[in-house]
Amino acid sequence: MKYFVDLNSDIGEGFGSYKMGMDEEIIKHVTSINLACGWHAGDPLIMDQTVKLAKEDGVMVGAHPGYPDLLGFGRRELKITAEEARCYMLYQVGALKAFTDAHSMKLQHMKLHGGFYNKACNDKELADAILDGIEELDKDIILMVLSGSYIAKEGKRRGLRISQEVFADRGYNEDGTLVNRSMPGAFVKDPKEAIPRVIKMIKEGKVIAANGKEIDIVADSICVHGDNPKAIEFVKEIRNGLIEAGVEITAIDKFIK
Amino acid sequence: MKYFVDLNSDIGEGFGSYKMGMDEEIIKHVTSINLACGWHAGDPLIMDQTVKLAKEDGVMVGAHPGYPDLLGFGRRELKITAEEARCYMLYQVGALKAFTDAHSMKLQHMKLHGGFYNKACNDKELADAILDGIEELDKDIILMVLSGSYIAKEGKRRGLRISQEVFADRGYNEDGTLVNRSMPGAFVKDPKEAIPRVIKMIKEGKVIAANGKEIDIVADSICVHGDNPKAIEFVKEIRNGLIEAGVEITAIDKFIK
Amino acid sequence: MKYFVDLNSDIGEGFGSYKMGMDEEIIKHVTSINLACGWHAGDPLIMDQTVKLAKEDGVMVGAHPGYPDLLGFGRRELKITAEEARCYMLYQVGALKAFTDAHSMKLQHMKLHGGFYNKACNDKELADAILDGIEELDKDIILMVLSGSYIAKEGKRRGLRISQEVFADRGYNEDGTLVNRSMPGAFVKDPKEAIPRVIKMIKEGKVIAANGKEIDIVADSICVHGDNPKAIEFVKEIRNGLIEAGVEITAIDKFIK
Amino acid sequence: MKYFVDLNSDIGEGFGSYKMGMDEEIIKHVTSINLACGWHAGDPLIMDQTVKLAKEDGVMVGAHPGYPDLLGFGRRELKITAEEARCYMLYQVGALKAFTDAHSMKLQHMKLHGGFYNKACNDKELADAILDGIEELDKDIILMVLSGSYIAKEGKRRGLRISQEVFADRGYNEDGTLVNRSMPGAFVKDPKEAIPRVIKMIKEGKVIAANGKEIDIVADSICVHGDNPKAIEFVKEIRNGLIEAGVEITAIDKFIK
Repeated sequence: MKYFVDLNSDIGEGFGSYKMGMDEEIIKHVTSINLACGWHAGDPLIMDQTVKLAKEDGVMVGAHPGYPDLLGFGRRELKITAEEARCYMLYQVGALKAFTDAHSMKLQHMKLHGGFYNKACNDKELADAILDGIEELDKDIILMVLSGSYIAKEGKRRGLRISQEVFADRGYNEDGTLVNRSMPGAFVKDPKEAIPRVIKMIKEGKVIAANGKEIDIVADSICVHGDNPKAIEFVKEIRNGLIEAGVEITAIDKFIK
Repeated sequence: MKYFVDLNSDIGEGFGSYKMGMDEEIIKHVTSINLACGWHAGDPLIMDQTVKLAKEDGVMVGAHPGYPDLLGFGRRELKITAEEARCYMLYQVGALKAFTDAHSMKLQHMKLHGGFYNKACNDKELADAILDGIEELDKDIILMVLSGSYIAKEGKRRGLRISQEVFADRGYNEDGTLVNRSMPGAFVKDPKEAIPRVIKMIKEGKVIAANGKEIDIVADSICVHGDNPKAIEFVKEIRNGLIEAGVEITAIDKFIK
Repeated sequence: MKYFVDLNSDIGEGFGSYKMGMDEEIIKHVTSINLACGWHAGDPLIMDQTVKLAKEDGVMVGAHPGYPDLLGFGRRELKITAEEARCYMLYQVGALKAFTDAHSMKLQHMKLHGGFYNKACNDKELADAILDGIEELDKDIILMVLSGSYIAKEGKRRGLRISQEVFADRGYNEDGTLVNRSMPGAFVKDPKEAIPRVIKMIKEGKVIAANGKEIDIVADSICVHGDNPKAIEFVKEIRNGLIEAGVEITAIDKFIK
Repeated sequence: MKYFVDLNSDIGEGFGSYKMGMDEEIIKHVTSINLACGWHAGDPLIMDQTVKLAKEDGVMVGAHPGYPDLLGFGRRELKITAEEARCYMLYQVGALKAFTDAHSMKLQHMKLHGGFYNKACNDKELADAILDGIEELDKDIILMVLSGSYIAKEGKRRGLRISQEVFADRGYNEDGTLVNRSMPGAFVKDPKEAIPRVIKMIKEGKVIAANGKEIDIVADSICVHGDNPKAIEFVKEIRNGLIEAGVEITAIDKFIK
């Protein structure tokens, strides 16, 4: 049996004169990028340059819409309505699509950012609005969502293209949600532990939760980071571990129906 | 011989809790709308609702990108580079296109707003960058530009779809530019004067400049306003005058090659 | 015995080219204004002009800091830290104080806006941070807060100047909080009902809650609105009713220790 | 005879999650800091922390108001009116003053940033509006301005406190303006050249312009940078050179009348 997995990373998170992340480095080690669309981070020049960079490096591009909160980097909870969720997402996806169109690239996927992601993956009302928006816009755009979340299940039920995302460096609760960052078991920082963990997710569809129980999980794509040299080293080790285990690392567009 | 003209109006210029303009009224009297894209005015909810309104009223939709200056309503001069011009335009056009796509409408045209329009219509470097952007994005999108401007000529030379715009209520200098708003002859407020003026533009391709000389002008589309009841009355009279003169009022997509 | 009450209204809520509210009208009928500071609404020109207007009309000025969310008019919940609450408040109060200083006026008070007000009046951590900020900045600045809230009690305990605010047009729960806008009993729209109600608050320190029970309430200031002609009519009637009942309507600075 | 000079540096130029500059380093080598006020850069938390840092390091604080253009870092030309100039400046100075007040520090000076500085130092209308604003706000606040500019002369004529600023690393034209960054002679990068140059400015009131002519210049304060380790090394060398030459390096508040 053949196993596939995608590696995705947030990218293009600077703004104007501000830089963030080691984009040129991390892009060499992933298959899909989530590109900030100007609201929580990113700006039109960065979007244009990053799409160009992705094209040169043969990496697939996705939109990464966030809350309208540059000051909080889109991480803070903001109470928005379902209608706002749908329209904020459409606006940002469209903005990025102008750049992928201009560079004759495909817009492969859409992944919400930060507080927007956290909220919309499991809030029925917001999730439904996001799914409505993608259905209206273009059913070929893959939704990259938290593995096992409401939006993943409902999106599949509607026949949309869903990529279930896992985190190589995060612990899981028994219900499949991530362990809160302030709690013990929130992080898996040692690649020696993380590598067999993600291989188990991919090959067996299982992960050991923070309480020791084995739970089901679907791993279409692994979220990795490119903030600093150590993070990039971690990605390289994950990559090598996956390849050695016979997993093919390729963009979700190749294997998500 | 058959004469055609389009009537266009800026629309969707509210923001969040702020309202502006009599959109539901003016949309009934024009054939094309220029929809603000969230930078100088407009927001995703307004864009969504206005595209829906345009669809119901059978009016064609265009993007109306402005400078990133909500505080100045995009009217103030801002010195941007050619690369910024291209990327700022692409971002905003793409953002709106998500809504026209979601509502299965065509994005007919792109018209720059305020200071961006004033600058880019006759600044070679910026105009070229705008034309590059439209060429890369979608050659079917019509550029609505100042009649007789550099961008009009260069766009035509490149084989792009160009709609040359005139102003029913503004005076012209001998070189085809608009008389500055602070100068005598800047405005033509009486419909009795404005109507024969635009008919002459359409049928003869001529207008009498502020200094009394007759100059050449191409009138594919007439820009009208919907800020207040008087402005809407003015539009109705222009419309009736054009129809009586045998001019067919129809969206530019129908007659611009 | 002599009774005093202040009438306060939110004002200066336009932004750039956008207008909101009937500021010139409502300012004639209140004793204190809460002036938006540029984050949820308002801008430096409006702040300058409104301070000037208040000076001419003999009305006292307060700062009205909101969340950094112009798109949501500062009404949406945004999860901020205590440190952010303190700094966001200080920034906006300082910005307004430059204008009251420039016009040789006193900055009388500070009232948080919308979601910021709702959250910080009863969230201990945020309330403490706001009180810290005012203590550090200037102990003479009055805090205008929800009557009976945590911040009111703790502010008094610290010896700060506290103005407890009531709403002429809103219903109260038994615990002194406002009835949610979507629930029955949320609004008291008839002046015939509202007038005896506020007089009872001022003279007896009591109000009938939505469930029919009489509860304690302190009414130093009554919040009124100037959004539309009907709202202004309501304010005039409240004013006349109070005067007839022998209540002196005067700015909080005169009677809050 | 005793010679005094101040060393000033722009600081606090991050925004939210974005960092910029080596603030903790550069602050040890200067006597005055120009603190960004949230418009072109900076935010309330950074302002609070930087004022605290300045207090600990015994450095004087000034406001550094910029254009409302975070995307362009306040460097791009933006055409604003005199009234906007006055109000934008007051707003930002007030915002910072809340933090110096809260930390019981003095707000020593105000220096405009980037495009705002370039424009307002020599545009009579804008300069007058800025001077009006400082006169209304607090005549004790020193204006840090381009040496020899219109605003310097007019400010002195009005009896305001003026600090004339020079640039250790920039070339001058014969008329006292800076050589454009794109022209030869724009930069003086070698400390061996820069040190005798600034000593000559301070002791003789003279500098050799790019065309070789000696011109008059007043050097109350020298602008230095803290962007990178090399810039900080440059500042240390300038400092040592000044001390060896017997110049006392002290904040402008000590010697500007």
